[in-house]
Amino acid sequence: MRDHELTLSTLYRRARSEFGDREIVSIGAGGRHTYSFEEFFGRVDRLAWALAGLGVKRGDRVGTIAWNHHRHLELYVAVTSVGAVLHTVNLRMAPHQVLDVVTRGGDVALFVDADVLGPLVDEGALPPDVPLVVLREDGDVIEAPGAVDYESLLAASSDEPYSYPELSESDPAAMAFSSATTGRPKGVVYSHRGLYLHSMMLGLADTWALSEADAVLPVVPMFHVNAWGLPFAALWFGSTILLPGRRPTAETVASLLEEATFAAAVPTVWMDVLARAREHAMRFPRLRLVVSGGAALNASLLAEADELGVPLIHSYGMTEASPVVLVNAPRSADATNVQKRVRQGYLVPGLEARVELSDGGAAPRDGVTAGELLLRGPWIVDGYVDDLRTEEVFRGGWYHTGDMVTIDAQGSLKVVDRQADLIKSGGEWISSIDLESALMEHPDVSMAAVIAVPDPRWQERPKAFVVATGQVTPEELRGWLEERFPRFWVPDAIDLVPELPLTAVGKFDKRALRGSE
Amino acid sequence: MRDHELTLSTLYRRARSEFGDREIVSIGAGGRHTYSFEEFFGRVDRLAWALAGLGVKRGDRVGTIAWNHHRHLELYVAVTSVGAVLHTVNLRMAPHQVLDVVTRGGDVALFVDADVLGPLVDEGALPPDVPLVVLREDGDVIEAPGAVDYESLLAASSDEPYSYPELSESDPAAMAFSSATTGRPKGVVYSHRGLYLHSMMLGLADTWALSEADAVLPVVPMFHVNAWGLPFAALWFGSTILLPGRRPTAETVASLLEEATFAAAVPTVWMDVLARAREHAMRFPRLRLVVSGGAALNASLLAEADELGVPLIHSYGMTEASPVVLVNAPRSADATNVQKRVRQGYLVPGLEARVELSDGGAAPRDGVTAGELLLRGPWIVDGYVDDLRTEEVFRGGWYHTGDMVTIDAQGSLKVVDRQADLIKSGGEWISSIDLESALMEHPDVSMAAVIAVPDPRWQERPKAFVVATGQVTPEELRGWLEERFPRFWVPDAIDLVPELPLTAVGKFDKRALRGSE
Repeated sequence: MRDHELTLSTLYRRARSEFGDREIVSIGAGGRHTYSFEEFFGRVDRLAWALAGLGVKRGDRVGTIAWNHHRHLELYVAVTSVGAVLHTVNLRMAPHQVLDVVTRGGDVALFVDADVLGPLVDEGALPPDVPLVVLREDGDVIEAPGAVDYESLLAASSDEPYSYPELSESDPAAMAFSSATTGRPKGVVYSHRGLYLHSMMLGLADTWALSEADAVLPVVPMFHVNAWGLPFAALWFGSTILLPGRRPTAETVASLLEEATFAAAVPTVWMDVLARAREHAMRFPRLRLVVSGGAALNASLLAEADELGVPLIHSYGMTEASPVVLVNAPRSADATNVQKRVRQGYLVPGLEARVELSDGGAAPRDGVTAGELLLRGPWIVDGYVDDLRTEEVFRGGWYHTGDMVTIDAQGSLKVVDRQADLIKSGGEWISSIDLESALMEHPDVSMAAVIAVPDPRWQERPKAFVVATGQVTPEELRGWLEERFPRFWVPDAIDLVPELPLTAVGKFDKRALRGSE
Repeated sequence: MRDHELTLSTLYRRARSEFGDREIVSIGAGGRHTYSFEEFFGRVDRLAWALAGLGVKRGDRVGTIAWNHHRHLELYVAVTSVGAVLHTVNLRMAPHQVLDVVTRGGDVALFVDADVLGPLVDEGALPPDVPLVVLREDGDVIEAPGAVDYESLLAASSDEPYSYPELSESDPAAMAFSSATTGRPKGVVYSHRGLYLHSMMLGLADTWALSEADAVLPVVPMFHVNAWGLPFAALWFGSTILLPGRRPTAETVASLLEEATFAAAVPTVWMDVLARAREHAMRFPRLRLVVSGGAALNASLLAEADELGVPLIHSYGMTEASPVVLVNAPRSADATNVQKRVRQGYLVPGLEARVELSDGGAAPRDGVTAGELLLRGPWIVDGYVDDLRTEEVFRGGWYHTGDMVTIDAQGSLKVVDRQADLIKSGGEWISSIDLESALMEHPDVSMAAVIAVPDPRWQERPKAFVVATGQVTPEELRGWLEERFPRFWVPDAIDLVPELPLTAVGKFDKRALRGSE
């Protein structure tokens, strides 16, 4: 009991011994690649030998710059099984950022998808002394001198069973850098224990209820907080795994959704996929649960999902939380209440939360008063790697999320703003997220971002940037908002713009918008 | 992440802060007692103060000898919250056994239901120097001199909030003694960490899927391995809790089943309850899952459950495993296959198993070859308390269950016998459990037990003891078995007897039967 370590190795052993005949489907340039868990783990063994051949030792960090496909999944499992640390690098970052996180991560080997390799090599984003392995698909040409081909590496590896080390639950298993929305990327390390418990939580009936009956489709990239933990959990519970490959289109995702029971992605993906589903009159008979996270979910997307029979729910989390924190799995009373369903939802079992007012008190459960969300629990990290921000953000044993939330009587949370984005106008606060959601519900609006601008009288006022798809005027949009919010919430300035700047994880880059003011 | 301890205290904090309005229903002499989690925890606070007043300190063991009711649940939570150890004593044991386990447990206080107090006092089973608190219902008269009444204790306690200590996950939380089927009761201690992880496992979609939408009815006694862990899990997940009270009748259980979504008990209870349901044409509209465990489930009980629309499944576990090990939550292929459904089922996520042949090799997954089940995992105990049997039973880092099982290609396990009960006849083994199940499926048989008797030619032969409800002869029963088993399995001797000896946990006492030979 005491000595039994909570490591990812025990998850993998279960996947291998109990679910050898389950399948992993991976979309690539050559079409659809399907193999069983048994075949998968055979290749993981070969990869483990190959990692040893590259000089990877226990505790070393191994970088991946790759999309969602079976080779990346093999890396997930082999790297963590040999006691090394999986460092998933966000391939949407600029080359200089990639170099920064690869260097700070101290990666001893890099596995990179061929389609993103060119600019990284050209810009010198890959340290020349680090072994480079290229993940290639049919038609790819390796462009980097000295690089090894992944399949050649495996072919040259041993086919002996690999003897995996007994790991400790406190061993580091994975590493990630949070996005650059708030300054230089911050590195976090996930322990085996943290990922084990986070995976177990994803199987709970009251969260995502992952199960051996599932076919799991992680559209959320495997370079975004481990695809929200889905690869580990899906292997453990013996779910079929559907990987959409490089740069998945709405067409690819919608097609895989026809055989999926569970899928997860950011709301912009679901907008595109639902549009395609409507256009082609597609049906998703097996679908049990679709999770939207990473950004707020608005009522119009929920309504569209309802019409198409897609069981869409909201979840919320962040890099520092492995990432899942809130799940809006509908409770009996909530099922048909859209105001409940646009909330981020309920704290998952295992975590503890505080909603803290600026005076240090707890926010009342009135669904209105906003406070900062504080978290602690076994899959909340302890701090950032070599980063002075740790002391401030993790003070007093709590992770200070910087997200302003309200909590209602049933314990459902709603993010009203980033603390930094909250608009204080005449002593009252205004939620930029609520304004953005309402603007995006307008039929002629595709995207909207709201920031605070200084105001001599009111201290701050909201200003909106809107990408319109139809003929709509700022005056009409103000009227639209006036029907929905108190008068003082409505932005004085609404700028129609051709596009909005996005961060590497696809969120509105409000720092850039503020800089343009 | 690292510093966050997995303790029951975090479960209770969630129950208290997130589910204050959920209800606990408890059946007593005064009828139905209902209160909210909020009121429950208020009384837990008072009880925590009272425990301090009785001199209970962190690490001390507190004995309970009680049925399933709200006061016992208050003890569960208060004792473990203050860092003391909950020692649930099986009230069906003989008084001298109670004295034995209370003494070996080192209990510093005892909480005893009034209806079982008399014989224990008369026989001197309660150590005179240990404070005694009596759990009384309407009409009970306290019979022990010097005993304190539970409600008076709470009334005299403080109504200040209690400041609970920060516990360590390795702290002991609970203690139990296994039944006396195989010698003197063996004591085990459960850590906070073990019970936390066991509770989390019970919420998984692929096990019992306990949820905030559930109304959980533990018919299995709270003195049998913590009612299979249900009290902890139900509080954590915010389920409504239905407690059937003292000596629950089939009438009481069937009545509560009308509002339950989940229930758990041994098969004999379900036989009685289903008979009553049929007799009174009862319907259980909310019922989602009914678990049968503690003894083998036979096909006729499953068929009866199917006819009544009761979703009955098999689970398996033991004191040493906290207790849940196997769950026969039907997988897609199994749902209608009765031969799959009578198996004990699939290993739950988190545990590891080996089916070991006598030569130390692993049994093939052929569903036929039997080996001993070995277990390890975070809620398998490390050993017995001050007991020389630890070394043998827990050798090599595995708990040796002593149960002989087969495993099929899908990983479903079936217990064919206790190692000690396995009948070896002419070099082949015969399963006493399979014979018993088949005999009990005969319409004129209520109970059956099969033991091995020495045989000069075959080494051992099976012998059956049968309690008949109708006019049936041993010859007819032999014919019944010959239709179902190889000829050499059929017992030469089938004795019709008026009753069978039972152990304190309601299992057939084969030691007593063997002694009568």
